[in-house]
Amino acid sequence: MLIASPQLMQFDAPLPLQSGAVLRQYRLAYETYGQLNAQKSNAVLVCHALNASHHVAGVYEGQVQSEGWWDTMVGPGKPLDTDEFFVIGVNNLGSCFGSTGPMHDNPDSGRIYGADFPVVTVEDWVNAQARLLDQLGIGQLAAVLGGSLGGMQALSWTLQYPERVRHAVVVASAPNLNAENIAFNEVARRAIVTDPDFHGGNFYAKGVVPKRGLRIARMIGHITYLSDDVMNEKFGRQLREGLDLKYSTQEVEFQIESYLRYQGDKFAEYFDANTYLLITRALDYFDPAKTCGGDLSVAFQKARAKFLLLSFTTDWRFSPQRSREIVKALLDNRREVSYAEIDAPHGHDAFLLTDTRYMAVMQGYFQGIQKELKQKNLKQLTGDERP
Amino acid sequence: MLIASPQLMQFDAPLPLQSGAVLRQYRLAYETYGQLNAQKSNAVLVCHALNASHHVAGVYEGQVQSEGWWDTMVGPGKPLDTDEFFVIGVNNLGSCFGSTGPMHDNPDSGRIYGADFPVVTVEDWVNAQARLLDQLGIGQLAAVLGGSLGGMQALSWTLQYPERVRHAVVVASAPNLNAENIAFNEVARRAIVTDPDFHGGNFYAKGVVPKRGLRIARMIGHITYLSDDVMNEKFGRQLREGLDLKYSTQEVEFQIESYLRYQGDKFAEYFDANTYLLITRALDYFDPAKTCGGDLSVAFQKARAKFLLLSFTTDWRFSPQRSREIVKALLDNRREVSYAEIDAPHGHDAFLLTDTRYMAVMQGYFQGIQKELKQKNLKQLTGDERP
Repeated sequence: MLIASPQLMQFDAPLPLQSGAVLRQYRLAYETYGQLNAQKSNAVLVCHALNASHHVAGVYEGQVQSEGWWDTMVGPGKPLDTDEFFVIGVNNLGSCFGSTGPMHDNPDSGRIYGADFPVVTVEDWVNAQARLLDQLGIGQLAAVLGGSLGGMQALSWTLQYPERVRHAVVVASAPNLNAENIAFNEVARRAIVTDPDFHGGNFYAKGVVPKRGLRIARMIGHITYLSDDVMNEKFGRQLREGLDLKYSTQEVEFQIESYLRYQGDKFAEYFDANTYLLITRALDYFDPAKTCGGDLSVAFQKARAKFLLLSFTTDWRFSPQRSREIVKALLDNRREVSYAEIDAPHGHDAFLLTDTRYMAVMQGYFQGIQKELKQKNLKQLTGDERP
Repeated sequence: MLIASPQLMQFDAPLPLQSGAVLRQYRLAYETYGQLNAQKSNAVLVCHALNASHHVAGVYEGQVQSEGWWDTMVGPGKPLDTDEFFVIGVNNLGSCFGSTGPMHDNPDSGRIYGADFPVVTVEDWVNAQARLLDQLGIGQLAAVLGGSLGGMQALSWTLQYPERVRHAVVVASAPNLNAENIAFNEVARRAIVTDPDFHGGNFYAKGVVPKRGLRIARMIGHITYLSDDVMNEKFGRQLREGLDLKYSTQEVEFQIESYLRYQGDKFAEYFDANTYLLITRALDYFDPAKTCGGDLSVAFQKARAKFLLLSFTTDWRFSPQRSREIVKALLDNRREVSYAEIDAPHGHDAFLLTDTRYMAVMQGYFQGIQKELKQKNLKQLTGDERP
């Protein structure tokens, strides 16, 4: 079993943000798995989505049930094989799992950031990740990988640092949010912001947590992660207790209600309300085509990587159509791109599950990268690459 | 222009409810349009959905902008032509527009019902509507008509009072809610119930209204009423002010946010929180196949009416698939059924809009009923129906 050890990297050089604000100093929580090879050519960065973290794979020493959020994908012998690759997980700025975020002290004021934590974007995260790689001595990534919001970061890597990424693996993602996506984010944010315990984002000092809002936000999220089909199959109209109705508007009647309340309660116990606002806003803002008059093909002129795109047929949050938009933009630029549309019933959640075809595509792609790496190393050894 | 006059009918005979509770006395708010013919054979009952009322058509005297919620469908020369039909709109029990509801006094306690208002079901509403028809001297309806939750009432009429309905017109409806539908209702209810101003449903005495919860509930509702396509077309990623981002998690950036907030604010001003809980529960509970082992075809053995079913291709709340389930169950019972699936971009909201093909189908169907009525009246005059 892979044993994971979280680490912290402190950065004292100010990080200019897209908004114009500057993070004067910050730290990033990260984990690495596997060994960086001598050529430093086998590094893979895994970017996380909304509520995940740098803890991608393995377990923590002595904590059996502490598997990383993508432990099915990353590890020894797994599709992203840590016997071959040096894998890096990093917690994004503004998150609540170790990297600098709204619950930390603002060095400018000496007080907790709270609502003053600057708005961060996908581009800002990628810049911060690039500095982490600098510190780790990694010039170029064998691959950058992410699902959902993580996929947006992978895309952005190929545009912000085209020479530093050989492959981008983008799962269940989109070139931007559509109006419905933004709408769901906005309702979740309003639920949090209008919770009287939110106190304008400065609830830390009051010793309270806007749990009501967080619960609602998470319940909405969960509905959008699942497909209609899988919800009907898992819950349908099943009652929680026997066959008799209680005729109550406030008690749980249906299993789906019980499931959602449980998910909401669990989430409200550990997730930070300001982080939720920041991360959903980063999702809303991501739109690489914006500065190119909305033309994604123009936006991807900068990209130099090879791409694997994956989508899931029942994902209505980031539908296959959105992945195809990216594929088209890449093909317009004659990029090398593979695309798999997996017929999976699980909706957006499918990217965290282990559909065999999905796993096979991922494994095959990373084996290809591995082969490429070996040829490259061989070339270096035999001097083929000398001018 | 049709001038509408709301009326109240008081009922002093207790109404037994599906839950086992009894409403000792109650009143129903209703409106009628057109003239009941001598044979009392031209009555059409229009059932309302979540936030509508008995005010179906026309305007109130001196109030220009007070059109009924289905004024496009019902009126002189409109698809449901009030020059030919006697149309009845009735506000459902538990609602907040005039019929007895949670904001009224409980005759048993002398205090406002609040959370004590009994849970009412589609079946209870239909029973109450039947008593109203008794009072109006109407034995059999030419048709019962409704969209969404209103369609469920129309369906239930054909099962509870099969001999009292000649035609049922069921628009954008479903034989029951699926897990996702229930899930959205539950999130909305939790937002209301966990609003500190809800006070367990007894907020009236405190002089407050759980507006935060109502706003969230309405925002969620609005997302599900619209199709993805129409949201993208109407709002897309348009910013509210110019082209520059504000980089704020709490201020409005996108037009869709502004639209949803506006809808939420407006709703919270007039809608009752307990009514919201009651009506979404009635939606959750409706399931005529439940007592028939889940077999809708068995459930519809009782039906005697002729049916028109309509659905809209982009309605993901009550998708065409759900209407087809009803059509199949009716055909299994050799009922006379017409079905139109309208290719409209507006999602669930389409049933309140005026797509020309939709209007044409409705008009055609009601003209058919009218013809039937005239033949029937002629037969009665010429004595053809005598044994």
